[in-house]
Amino acid sequence: MSFSKLKFELEARDGNARAGFFQLHGHKIETPIFMPVGTNGTVKAITVDELKKMGYRLILGNTYHLHLRPGDGIIQRLGGLHQFMNWNRGILTDSGGFQVFSLGKLNKISEEGAFFRSHLDGSKKVLTPESAIAIQENLGSDIMMVLDECLPIPVDKKTAAESIARTTRWAVRSFNARRSDNNLFGIVQGADFEDLRRESAQMLMETDFDGFAIGGLSVGEDKEIMDGMVSLIVPVLPEKKPRYLMGVGDPIDMINSIESGVDMFDCVLPTRNARNGGLFTFKGPVSIKRSQFKEDNLPLDKDCDCDVCQNYSRAYLRHLYKSNEILSSRLNSYHNLWFFKQLLMKAREAILAGSFKKFKRRFLSDYLGSQE
Amino acid sequence: MSFSKLKFELEARDGNARAGFFQLHGHKIETPIFMPVGTNGTVKAITVDELKKMGYRLILGNTYHLHLRPGDGIIQRLGGLHQFMNWNRGILTDSGGFQVFSLGKLNKISEEGAFFRSHLDGSKKVLTPESAIAIQENLGSDIMMVLDECLPIPVDKKTAAESIARTTRWAVRSFNARRSDNNLFGIVQGADFEDLRRESAQMLMETDFDGFAIGGLSVGEDKEIMDGMVSLIVPVLPEKKPRYLMGVGDPIDMINSIESGVDMFDCVLPTRNARNGGLFTFKGPVSIKRSQFKEDNLPLDKDCDCDVCQNYSRAYLRHLYKSNEILSSRLNSYHNLWFFKQLLMKAREAILAGSFKKFKRRFLSDYLGSQE
Repeated sequence: MSFSKLKFELEARDGNARAGFFQLHGHKIETPIFMPVGTNGTVKAITVDELKKMGYRLILGNTYHLHLRPGDGIIQRLGGLHQFMNWNRGILTDSGGFQVFSLGKLNKISEEGAFFRSHLDGSKKVLTPESAIAIQENLGSDIMMVLDECLPIPVDKKTAAESIARTTRWAVRSFNARRSDNNLFGIVQGADFEDLRRESAQMLMETDFDGFAIGGLSVGEDKEIMDGMVSLIVPVLPEKKPRYLMGVGDPIDMINSIESGVDMFDCVLPTRNARNGGLFTFKGPVSIKRSQFKEDNLPLDKDCDCDVCQNYSRAYLRHLYKSNEILSSRLNSYHNLWFFKQLLMKAREAILAGSFKKFKRRFLSDYLGSQE
Repeated sequence: MSFSKLKFELEARDGNARAGFFQLHGHKIETPIFMPVGTNGTVKAITVDELKKMGYRLILGNTYHLHLRPGDGIIQRLGGLHQFMNWNRGILTDSGGFQVFSLGKLNKISEEGAFFRSHLDGSKKVLTPESAIAIQENLGSDIMMVLDECLPIPVDKKTAAESIARTTRWAVRSFNARRSDNNLFGIVQGADFEDLRRESAQMLMETDFDGFAIGGLSVGEDKEIMDGMVSLIVPVLPEKKPRYLMGVGDPIDMINSIESGVDMFDCVLPTRNARNGGLFTFKGPVSIKRSQFKEDNLPLDKDCDCDVCQNYSRAYLRHLYKSNEILSSRLNSYHNLWFFKQLLMKAREAILAGSFKKFKRRFLSDYLGSQE
């Protein structure tokens, strides 16, 4: 698998919203894009063939999980993550930092890195900017992320200021640790402090990253804070590089962020909600558990072209969910990922057509209007 | 969905083993056949498209489960089980009796039927020969089974004799309860008593069933008892009707029973074992959990043409299993069902070629020879 420097090209702008593309493995990756999350080397319940059928060309792998199990050394010896999971398209990996803070038992953060215990077996581990890059290079990631500290919101400003200064130093160390041509993105942090966010972005931009991510949002703060931070930071970032809003996947949040100029998203929302019976449609979210669907022979969404809506009834989907059948997770995940692909495609088409504002208005009206 | 009387045609015999076929929904169902079990209206972890791709044309649905959830009345109003689960090929349903005895809390057996409590909500239920048929007709089953009592082995002879007499009376009541053209099979019981088994078969044959099943085996008894009962009963059964050994799916048991003249099998083994990391190959069963597969880049079975063996390594399958990923159940179930289809196809081809004994010898030698 040969790696290519990501060349991002802008095709159109519509207000701050933009449509563009870059190439990975000979595949054109069109933006704005949603990336399904393949935590353990699989997008939960879904095969790579299904991802391809839906049109996905870039997915996310989790460095923290794959480092702990099966181990990035094993994956590297088996030919890298692409070969391991039989996916010959693009893979972006996070740095593992977010999971160290959320899943692992964090023991200490020092200038060196993050000391933690594995959530699997309690063993002592350390993640440094250098090791995060080494792991991602072992995985053979196409787009790597720098190690960063993800701050909670709210947090006191002194802590935040110290943290983003360290995160910036870690970013430079990550950049210098690279032994490959794999792409590397920097990550803007700064909690909900406008000046710290700006400072973080400006410090990061002194390094020649291939793209810039906004991290530390969608961590439980009010939507207004998130939207505010995104619309504040995006204009500061370089025009010619992709902008990635990490961990965001709520349809409304994505549409708002696209309007602000974000190009890339990832989230477990479509697959996690699917497993809990939560389905996305353009007429709003639907809980398939509801008893009203007991004898409902209609498809989930009659306007949806996905295999699930073409072949199965709401009553059947409800029955599978109530019976705790694996097929429930399969079909629900497929439908939701299909919806996310369609949503981002429609957003992109609207930008190309110069009608994003109209698209957004109609989308919000349909999505919020009638909750079946 | 229109129903057709099952016309069974014998194509070849090789010793007592036989190859034949019948038509259902315009599809030729070739025997000997293994039927995947779709308990809750889905073969666990597998889609109907995948079943078709593997070549399956007849699957099993569980009357007990579907009666309790979502309810056979609901399924009937939604167009029947075929439409509900989007399967336009054959469906055989059991009578629900076996699950009443194994899953439900059985309260009483009387001449009228079996009184039990639902394993889902503890509600009081009764299954009679007549209601078992009505439920199966609501489901729209192509091949229905009479209500029978499944005896444990060992059991005292007096109990067994009384039970098979009642089971025979139930079979006649089931036959007379039919309001459709759907096919109906009788079930030979009799625990491990040769004379009772013979008596059961002979009494059943006085009714014009469309086929005959052997029930109450593979319930924990020694293999020799099962093989003995099968080879004893099969020659008693009518030559021109299919013979179905219920609940049997161990590859060696199936091959032995095919040799005795059995035509049909069903079992949860391929899918249940799959979910527990147990995989079938012609070189014997493989537990994918084993640490020896940690860095094994080979396919599970290099001679297997299934999508799983063509695309994924043992190391990946092990990783998915260890990570408790849904994809593990999916891929393992697919491979095992593929193996079962291949095994039965090879057995059939050997019968058609007049080389079943040789096939069996080679199969057993490979299967038992080297346990990787």
